[in-house]
Amino acid sequence: MKDLFKGDMMINLIKLSFDIGDLTINAFNAIIESDIIINYDNIDLDDLDSYIRDKEIILRQEDESEEDSNVYSNIKKGYSLIELAISKSYNNVTVICSNSSNIYGIANLLIQISSKHEDVELKIYPGVSPIDYSSAVLGAPLNDFAAIDLNNPIESSNELENKIKMALENDFVLFVHNLKGNEFISNEDQNNNYNRLKEIVSDFNEDLLVGIVNDNYSYEICKFKDIRDEVINESSTLIIGNKLTYRLEDYMVTSCDYIVKPKFISQNMDFFERYLKDETPKGIDYDCDYLPCHKKLESCDFCYCPFYPCADGLTGGEWIKGKNVWSCQHCDWIHLEEPCKAIREGLDDILKEPNDLKTKHIELLKLRRECLLKTLK
Amino acid sequence: MKDLFKGDMMINLIKLSFDIGDLTINAFNAIIESDIIINYDNIDLDDLDSYIRDKEIILRQEDESEEDSNVYSNIKKGYSLIELAISKSYNNVTVICSNSSNIYGIANLLIQISSKHEDVELKIYPGVSPIDYSSAVLGAPLNDFAAIDLNNPIESSNELENKIKMALENDFVLFVHNLKGNEFISNEDQNNNYNRLKEIVSDFNEDLLVGIVNDNYSYEICKFKDIRDEVINESSTLIIGNKLTYRLEDYMVTSCDYIVKPKFISQNMDFFERYLKDETPKGIDYDCDYLPCHKKLESCDFCYCPFYPCADGLTGGEWIKGKNVWSCQHCDWIHLEEPCKAIREGLDDILKEPNDLKTKHIELLKLRRECLLKTLK
Repeated sequence: MKDLFKGDMMINLIKLSFDIGDLTINAFNAIIESDIIINYDNIDLDDLDSYIRDKEIILRQEDESEEDSNVYSNIKKGYSLIELAISKSYNNVTVICSNSSNIYGIANLLIQISSKHEDVELKIYPGVSPIDYSSAVLGAPLNDFAAIDLNNPIESSNELENKIKMALENDFVLFVHNLKGNEFISNEDQNNNYNRLKEIVSDFNEDLLVGIVNDNYSYEICKFKDIRDEVINESSTLIIGNKLTYRLEDYMVTSCDYIVKPKFISQNMDFFERYLKDETPKGIDYDCDYLPCHKKLESCDFCYCPFYPCADGLTGGEWIKGKNVWSCQHCDWIHLEEPCKAIREGLDDILKEPNDLKTKHIELLKLRRECLLKTLK
Repeated sequence: MKDLFKGDMMINLIKLSFDIGDLTINAFNAIIESDIIINYDNIDLDDLDSYIRDKEIILRQEDESEEDSNVYSNIKKGYSLIELAISKSYNNVTVICSNSSNIYGIANLLIQISSKHEDVELKIYPGVSPIDYSSAVLGAPLNDFAAIDLNNPIESSNELENKIKMALENDFVLFVHNLKGNEFISNEDQNNNYNRLKEIVSDFNEDLLVGIVNDNYSYEICKFKDIRDEVINESSTLIIGNKLTYRLEDYMVTSCDYIVKPKFISQNMDFFERYLKDETPKGIDYDCDYLPCHKKLESCDFCYCPFYPCADGLTGGEWIKGKNVWSCQHCDWIHLEEPCKAIREGLDDILKEPNDLKTKHIELLKLRRECLLKTLK
C-alpha cells in the first residue's frame, strides 16, 4: 500500500475468500467507506448487506455484445466496469474479486488500469489467499513450497511440466490452484493439464499425501493415487505433500523445524554411553528378552533412538494421550538397515559424548531429516 | 477448520501480520470470545486493548532457567505456556503469534500439542501471511512462485541451495522469508545463508528485480545487485522477480495472463495482410521516412507488432496517460534481430489471415511469452 495518497480518486482492491469472515478489518473498513462497489466476480455479498445497502453496486453483466469475443468477455467486462467507475469519477471505488480462481492476476490488471489515468490511486489490501485458506483448513502442510497455476492460458505445457517436475524433485510441497473453470482455456486443454499433473506426480510418487480443499472449509486428505476427480471443482486447490508430509488425526502435516521440547531419559544416555564405547549390539540382538519388539525389525543398532523424542509422527511415533510421553512403539524406520547405515555415517561427527544428545539436538534432527529424505520412498 | 467441535477445550491459533487491521473478522471474534490469550511472540496488542482488557493475557517470559538451553528457550516457553493453559483447563484459549519470522511452523507445533491431549480441539484461522502482505505492498510481483525459508535449522545447506537454483532456472518468482533473527541458528550461519542466496542469484542474473518488504508497509524495489543489506531486518521478506518482472511506477509487476482488452487498429491489419503475402520489409527498411524510429533498431520485420496491444510494460510499452492508447515508442524488443527470428518461427503456425490477430490474441500472447523467456537476459 503506497504511503501517500496522491490521487483524486481511490480504487481499493479487495480479494474475498470463501467466507466473508475472512475479510480483514482494513478491507472491511474500506468497503464501508467506499462510494461504489464493483463486484468483479459477482460474489454473494448478502452477509455484508446491512453495511453496503446505501452504496451503488455494479455486478458484471453477462450479456455478450457482438464484438465481445468470449475469450475476453470476463476481463473485458471487469475492465469496462472499472473504466466506467473512473469515467463517473467517484472518489472512492472498491473492487471486490474472488481469489479462488486466480491469486494475483487482478492486482496486475488494476495496476495497468490505474497507470492509464492521472490521479487514480490504487490500494491493494492484503487478504487471505487460497494458500492461507487451504493450509489452515488442512493443518500445517506447507514448509518450503511451490505455487503453480495449472491453467495459465499464455504458458506453454512444456513450462508447466518442468515446473511441476522440478518442484517434486526438490522436495517442495506443491500448491496447485486454478484447476478448473478458466474461461480463457478450453475444457479439453484444462483436462489435459489436470491429467498431465496426475501423470507426472504419479510417475514420481503416487503415495504422496494430497489435500483437496474446496469452499465452505470442506476438504479431503488421501494418497495422491486415491484422488477422486469428482470432488474437484472451480474452487478446488490441491496441496501435494512431500516425503516428509504425513497425516496426524484429521490434519495434514509436513514435518518441520518446530518441535516440541525434548525430555531426555537416562536410559537413552546410558545406551549411548555404551554405543560410544562400541558395546551396543549390531544387527538383530537375538539375546534380547524384548525381541521381537517391532514389526519390521532389521537392526537393533539403535535400540534407543539418538533423535528421541523427535515428536514427529512422520515415522510412526506418537504422544500417549494425557501423558507427557512420546512413544516410539510404532516407529519401525529406526530399526531398518538402510536408515541405520545412513544415521551411523552422520552420527559420528555429532555425538562425541552422551550429553551431546541434549546440547546438539538440532544437529541430530538435521541428520534425521537428511536420512529421512535419503531413505523414505 | 474442523467441521465438528468435539473437544471440551478450544485452542484458537491466530497469526497476526504487522498491522492489527490485517486481522480477519473471524480471528478478531475468536479473540473477543476467548478466556485467555497467549501472546506467543509478545506482539504489541495495544490496538486491541479495549477489547481484551478483561481477559487473562500470558506473555512469554524471558527468564532463562538452568536446564533451559538457549536453542530451545523460544519454543519451550511457548510450548509451556500452552501446556499451562491446558492444565488450567480454560474453555477457550487463543494463541496469537507473529507470522513474520515463520509462516507455518506454529500450526505444526500446536497440532502436535493438541494431539497429546484428549478433548483439546484446535482451530487454525486463515490469515494474512507474509506472502500476501509482501505481494500487496509491492503490487503484483507473484505468479507461479517458490517460497523458501532461508533459515530452517534442520535443513542442509545443500538442500537450500538446490531449491534456490531450481526455482531460478525454472523462472519461478522467489519468495524468501526468515532472513534474520532465527534464534535456532547462529548469526554466522544466518549470514552464510544470506550471502549464499546473494551469490546464487547474482551468478544467475544480478539484474533481476527484487522487492524488499519490511513491517509498516515500508519497501524498496531495485535490481538484485543493488540490494542494500542494511535495510534487511527480522521482519524483512524478499520477492525476487523473474525475467518477466518489471517496475511500473511504484509497483513491482510480473507480467501474467491478465491483460487489458486489446483494441485492434486497422493499420495493424493492413500490415499483416502484406506480411502474409510476404510483401513487408526484411531487416532494416532504409527507404522508410520514419527511420530511425527506435533506439536499438536492428529489424523492421515487425514494423507493426503482432502482439499489439500487449498492454504489458515489460518491454517498454506504456499507456498514454488520460488517453486510451497503448504506445510502443519505447519498446525496442520487437525490433531486435533475435526476438524477430523467434517470433517469425512461431507466428506462421498461428497467423493464417489478418483477422487471426483478433481471434487468436491469446495464442499470440503465449508466443510472446515464449519468445520473451527465450530472448530476454
